[in-house]
Amino acid sequence: MIDSKKFLLQESDIPEAWYNVVVDMPVKPRPILNPQTKEAMKAEDLYPIFAEELANQEMNTTDRWIEIPDEVREMYRIWRPTPLVRARGLEKMLDTPAHIYFKNESVSPVGSHKLNSAIPQAYYNKKQGVTNITTETGAGQWGAALSMAAKHFGLELAVYMVKVSYHQKPYRRSIMQTYGAQVIASPSMSTRAGRRILTDTPNYQGSLGTAISEAIELAQSTPNCKYTLGSVFNHVSLHQTVIGLEAEKQMEMAGEYPDVVIGCFGGGSNFAGISFPFLRHNFLDGRNTRFIAAEPASCPKLTKGVFQYDFGDEAGYTPMIPMLTLGHNFSPANIHAGGLRYHGAGHIVSQMKQDGFIEAVDIPQLETFKAATMFAQSEGIIPAPESSHAIATAIREALKAKEEGVQKTILFNLSGHGLIDMAAYDSYISGDLANYEVSDEDVARNVASLEKII
Amino acid sequence: MIDSKKFLLQESDIPEAWYNVVVDMPVKPRPILNPQTKEAMKAEDLYPIFAEELANQEMNTTDRWIEIPDEVREMYRIWRPTPLVRARGLEKMLDTPAHIYFKNESVSPVGSHKLNSAIPQAYYNKKQGVTNITTETGAGQWGAALSMAAKHFGLELAVYMVKVSYHQKPYRRSIMQTYGAQVIASPSMSTRAGRRILTDTPNYQGSLGTAISEAIELAQSTPNCKYTLGSVFNHVSLHQTVIGLEAEKQMEMAGEYPDVVIGCFGGGSNFAGISFPFLRHNFLDGRNTRFIAAEPASCPKLTKGVFQYDFGDEAGYTPMIPMLTLGHNFSPANIHAGGLRYHGAGHIVSQMKQDGFIEAVDIPQLETFKAATMFAQSEGIIPAPESSHAIATAIREALKAKEEGVQKTILFNLSGHGLIDMAAYDSYISGDLANYEVSDEDVARNVASLEKII
Repeated sequence: MIDSKKFLLQESDIPEAWYNVVVDMPVKPRPILNPQTKEAMKAEDLYPIFAEELANQEMNTTDRWIEIPDEVREMYRIWRPTPLVRARGLEKMLDTPAHIYFKNESVSPVGSHKLNSAIPQAYYNKKQGVTNITTETGAGQWGAALSMAAKHFGLELAVYMVKVSYHQKPYRRSIMQTYGAQVIASPSMSTRAGRRILTDTPNYQGSLGTAISEAIELAQSTPNCKYTLGSVFNHVSLHQTVIGLEAEKQMEMAGEYPDVVIGCFGGGSNFAGISFPFLRHNFLDGRNTRFIAAEPASCPKLTKGVFQYDFGDEAGYTPMIPMLTLGHNFSPANIHAGGLRYHGAGHIVSQMKQDGFIEAVDIPQLETFKAATMFAQSEGIIPAPESSHAIATAIREALKAKEEGVQKTILFNLSGHGLIDMAAYDSYISGDLANYEVSDEDVARNVASLEKII
Repeated sequence: MIDSKKFLLQESDIPEAWYNVVVDMPVKPRPILNPQTKEAMKAEDLYPIFAEELANQEMNTTDRWIEIPDEVREMYRIWRPTPLVRARGLEKMLDTPAHIYFKNESVSPVGSHKLNSAIPQAYYNKKQGVTNITTETGAGQWGAALSMAAKHFGLELAVYMVKVSYHQKPYRRSIMQTYGAQVIASPSMSTRAGRRILTDTPNYQGSLGTAISEAIELAQSTPNCKYTLGSVFNHVSLHQTVIGLEAEKQMEMAGEYPDVVIGCFGGGSNFAGISFPFLRHNFLDGRNTRFIAAEPASCPKLTKGVFQYDFGDEAGYTPMIPMLTLGHNFSPANIHAGGLRYHGAGHIVSQMKQDGFIEAVDIPQLETFKAATMFAQSEGIIPAPESSHAIATAIREALKAKEEGVQKTILFNLSGHGLIDMAAYDSYISGDLANYEVSDEDVARNVASLEKII
């Protein structure tokens, strides 16, 4: 029995500023470094890659609140504020004393939270007079969102889409093309980085790391062109805090406060979005909320990765980032949660994980689809394979609450719907899906091979 | 530039009653007939096929308002009220003086308006103690909606899905299966009606008419089982009037009243939903709004069909319905708007068309995809191929307004999004799509072949 209860805000409740968590972190993240000089980078050092305003946001450690431009809030109004939902159907199905809430970011026109950052990124590039932008995309959620935003602001966009997803999820490609973007399967022959990999490994199915290398290379070799990305970096997490800021107000409407906040984890943007605004109350107001990042067992950087400086991309074009990493050359298994197939975690989340402010779990693929099906049948919404990692974790927590006989308030972010991912469900229904695990030894071996490079 | 303006209602604005247009029709529709006796059927005569309450609604010609049960309104709250949107981005792209509004029914969890009727149909069946229901589906939007509703109310559901769509849109099948429904490609070997067609024409790709025959036959040969359908009949149109009733309030918020109301047209349910509440002001309050049903050029029952008694299904299991029809054995081309591939129009809409209260246009497939792409790029939403017929018609009207230099207020129903129909967009982008036309001679020949049967 679906029995969800929505908590709705007004358009006037759309946040007027993003929350910059760095200001409130007790232990600041280590600086990102110039790979040549090994010196800490300043905002200006990022201007060749990113729009200036985005580079400034990336390096901003002093302003707790960063104003959201009117042009961006105007666009947010297309689908924001998003609903907060009490998942009573799922609670009943699990027969748990826990109260389960989810923030429904799937209601955006492209079906995911990615628009929250795509819009400001396109906006700041346009404002600066940039005419062309590039990006990478895994499953295609980021690419779809940026395609819509780029069209709106009149920017030309080229998207490098991880090859396995390009073939596994052709319809996300069509969505980007319908919005007017160029989509290239990565690795491709259009960049040095791509050609090198294709020469070494002709059948390589790609990774986000490789696609980032290609997108950066194209941006740097195209006039008036900047690179954009959908996760990992601080400015992306910043934009996503609209999720948690709205959820804060909505939990208040519901008369509860979360004991546990959960987000799925690829590079960290939706996890940051739902978590950081609540984290600030742990930092500032003595709250003891737990924060759980849910990653795939096949790509376990938070649970099994090594904390060290690494590149954000495969070819080593990015700055060196202090991150929990599986190694920038890590090639994850072809799971359907393509958006989570990334080798590292952003430097803020990595630091917080090291300092014990957040937890992480890794979930096998089959458990995520079982959770997704339970959610579809009890809440009526078919979730994205990525978001299903958060659902599986919420179910684990709710069943633990039942076992322990304690009431507990769980909040997770439903980062997107799965209506464009039905091929994955089809495989699950047919019994064709497998679990993929990565051992500590695999990680150690891969990272060791890397230390020679850096 | 996307520049949409939303008009939002509160949950308390969800209508408390459906609007029964028959009460206000100046010319009542002719009765539906028992095919054996040729006598007018009463509600009780439909009890063997439909849940009693639905049969009563079907035949109700006296109550203008029919109360929506609390259990149904509770479910409507999952996504209703839906937004009304002023499509200023599209207006600018067309450089038209017209004001274009659309009711966004794509925001439901299954992505279309079909849930509006799936929920009450499942509810009334459950209330009566029915345990199993059957239905047909074309593109799968109705099947997906009913699968979700059936799971909620604990009913077993079998869906006959038109074979061409079963293969063209495998992911809608997966959606139904994820919600727990049985899905069978139609024609199938599981019914006499299916076997007969497969024997005659082994490669027959199916039609809604055939799928209806199979669903009715299965319902009648299964204990405690009833048939349900997603369009054509009055009780379905009735449930869809929540669309227009909400839109009425929202147009008032916008300070305008529509000069033209447009819906795409398959069997008539979403067209009825957006139109009937506004039509009542033509009937009762002297308004002169135009109502345009937009059908595919490949299945033009309203523009080229013959008005006569015909069956609603291919095998002739339904009552005889006074309808504008291409003949119940009509086999439409394999266009991507699978939900519009139906041979006839419901008897209410057919009567109104005969009496001049509504207009109809038929749109070639390529024009619908061109309109869809313009809409995606100017409003940010990728529309369903079905809904794109309404968009194409709205664009025609807006360009006419520009040509004539008149301001005009246009309202259309965006019945669903196209995120599960990207294969169709893929074909369009690749230049693989064609137009299909049906001539008056084709129709005359087909209907003539039929008169011997009836």
